[in-house]
Amino acid sequence: MTIREQAEQAAAAARKLAAISPDVKNKALNAMADALLAEKEAILSANALDIEAGKAKNMKASLIDRLLLTEARIADMAEGLRQVASLRDPVGEIISGSTLPNGLTVTKIRVPLGVIGIIYEARPNVTADAIGLCLKSGNATILKGGSEAIRSNTKIAEIMGAAAEKAGTPAGSIQFITSTDHKAVQELITLNGLVDVVIPRGSGRLIQAVVGNASVPVIETGVGVCHTFVDAGADYAMAEAIVINAKTQRPSVCNAMETLLVHKDAAADFLPHMLQVLKDKDVQIIGDETVCAMDASAIPATEEDWATEYGDLRLSVKIVDDVDAAIDHIARYGTKHSECIVTRSFANARKFQQMVDAACVYANASTRFTDGFQFGFGAEIGISTQKLHARGPMALPELTTYKYLISGDGQVRP
Amino acid sequence: MTIREQAEQAAAAARKLAAISPDVKNKALNAMADALLAEKEAILSANALDIEAGKAKNMKASLIDRLLLTEARIADMAEGLRQVASLRDPVGEIISGSTLPNGLTVTKIRVPLGVIGIIYEARPNVTADAIGLCLKSGNATILKGGSEAIRSNTKIAEIMGAAAEKAGTPAGSIQFITSTDHKAVQELITLNGLVDVVIPRGSGRLIQAVVGNASVPVIETGVGVCHTFVDAGADYAMAEAIVINAKTQRPSVCNAMETLLVHKDAAADFLPHMLQVLKDKDVQIIGDETVCAMDASAIPATEEDWATEYGDLRLSVKIVDDVDAAIDHIARYGTKHSECIVTRSFANARKFQQMVDAACVYANASTRFTDGFQFGFGAEIGISTQKLHARGPMALPELTTYKYLISGDGQVRP
Repeated sequence: MTIREQAEQAAAAARKLAAISPDVKNKALNAMADALLAEKEAILSANALDIEAGKAKNMKASLIDRLLLTEARIADMAEGLRQVASLRDPVGEIISGSTLPNGLTVTKIRVPLGVIGIIYEARPNVTADAIGLCLKSGNATILKGGSEAIRSNTKIAEIMGAAAEKAGTPAGSIQFITSTDHKAVQELITLNGLVDVVIPRGSGRLIQAVVGNASVPVIETGVGVCHTFVDAGADYAMAEAIVINAKTQRPSVCNAMETLLVHKDAAADFLPHMLQVLKDKDVQIIGDETVCAMDASAIPATEEDWATEYGDLRLSVKIVDDVDAAIDHIARYGTKHSECIVTRSFANARKFQQMVDAACVYANASTRFTDGFQFGFGAEIGISTQKLHARGPMALPELTTYKYLISGDGQVRP
Repeated sequence: MTIREQAEQAAAAARKLAAISPDVKNKALNAMADALLAEKEAILSANALDIEAGKAKNMKASLIDRLLLTEARIADMAEGLRQVASLRDPVGEIISGSTLPNGLTVTKIRVPLGVIGIIYEARPNVTADAIGLCLKSGNATILKGGSEAIRSNTKIAEIMGAAAEKAGTPAGSIQFITSTDHKAVQELITLNGLVDVVIPRGSGRLIQAVVGNASVPVIETGVGVCHTFVDAGADYAMAEAIVINAKTQRPSVCNAMETLLVHKDAAADFLPHMLQVLKDKDVQIIGDETVCAMDASAIPATEEDWATEYGDLRLSVKIVDDVDAAIDHIARYGTKHSECIVTRSFANARKFQQMVDAACVYANASTRFTDGFQFGFGAEIGISTQKLHARGPMALPELTTYKYLISGDGQVRP
């Protein structure tokens, strides 16, 4: 089947999916969870071949780990599907409504987006997550995973598709692109009229390639150059705990911190101990002139450093004049993801939260909380760093749109 | 100034605009209205040059009419700005919020999108409308109007920009692209990081060119191949009134009807009189075989006709087997704009409204009501025919996004 044919099947299925009951969808989600567990041997065998191929290509250990499936990871995937089944169904919610002066009733209801394309890398569990969330929100899915996980993903998608269809969802609702050719992505992201939105998940390079070349709408996710600004007179113990958490608890993820901004009047009291604690945690400091003068082991920061998502144990550190200078720095180098101020000043917290243009703006808490589960959404398909449609953690409602139902008794426009 | 420089100015202004008070914005809107009236002679002179140039190029009379400004039309533009000033400010609305188990408060608030690009054709009043709506919603604007109205638009934008700045809005909030080169559009729609969204308004060709070539997010507007389905046993007098209104009240607009679908069991009783009334209104019938057999003056419909937005007094007419066939036809040829069923059947109305995938789905009312003012929104920047971000009539809230403000007392992620 060509990718266009897959998209046509998905679009046809999406029309039916929009009208099936929550019961059928939840039954399908639980059936998919059962099937993943029942067929775990087949999944592990497929995964073993991917791992073998990765090792043969000298894939990095961290990538091998992301690619690896175990019984426990398969059990987590199944449990994730059951959790999605237990969430409230977003489809059909009446968002608002009114009766116009002429008697027409206008009802705004939540409906699925239609066909969602997901383009992702390495981790095979994304396959199960994305299928589950898209199905729950009444959408057909077209998945394009990375070539390194092609055997694992193909098997997972096949097992889940069969289970869902058996449970009563329309045939064709779940499409998996088996081609590992890059042209497949290009075709998928230009199928206007068939694909309603594409969500890329993965490296900045992947995301930029999709954003730059798509003609269907895209939701840009993920890249996070996140800052923490420590104000003068802040609770420095609190600031230290927040910085350590934001930088070191899981440095590879997008809500981890990349740059520490310190008020010039806080530098002498706060920085020496902070830098020592960071170094004790194996964090490489990349500093401006003042920081390098304070700490001989710091590497001088280049212009590029301020704009870089390190994704590991490196941290840029800069002294700024005041909260306004911090806000300006973030406007210039931030990626509109998650930004934090640590302060005792109500006025500065208020100004920072108002003026910083990002999905999540924190006062006195770690940026690591930017996450659909942490926010209590019960699910997450990604973190949007664009402003259109959805911003920040995206859960089920962000996979829907709305339509207006207008009912009358013969009204015409005067 | 290059277009990138204009966008940089707009982005810098947008940061300040996000934080100015509703009072300042409303004062600026009223000042812009005053300025348009005070300088109407200058606007009319500029417009006279555009009209002259249009006539020299043998521009169609209907286009000349769209281009023409009069004292009354300038007064309407000013009145529109005053109405926008009187609307509720969407910025800063608290959409929702919660306190997480760890004590963090999460507040979702409405904020401006940032920088909005508007690409449009012919009608100079769009310049005033777009500037007003974008300013009210706290956004900076970059306008690219059609070359045929360049003198009128430049003058209007100049007068409004000066008035807004004098009233206290940040310099650079309103950018007008004076170049009439098509490359200007291409540059504008690829300024990722500076332009947050582009809204094309105008012909299908313009919109497709923007959708196909943009890398910044686009809101697709406007093209409407709208259908009315007359069910068997419907109130045929009501159906006739709705069809006449939807087709002939203003045939050039996107919510006008292009195709009439008639249940086969309604054809004999309903169609002969309907076709006669349409012809009395100078509507050219383009019919399927059955319709052509009933009416010798009908032109046989081609495959292309079913997908065409005529925008004038032509109407495609087709007999269908039942409501399901009507839904299928609309899924195939509709543009997800506005669709209508005329019926007495509760079950068929319910099915049609559920299954038809369009921004506005009507039961027993004219599709001509798809309009921000008709819906009581108080404003309209366009009608979205895509599903991402906004659908149907877009007013002030659709020109905003949201962000999460998270406040705590030192929470870190376990």
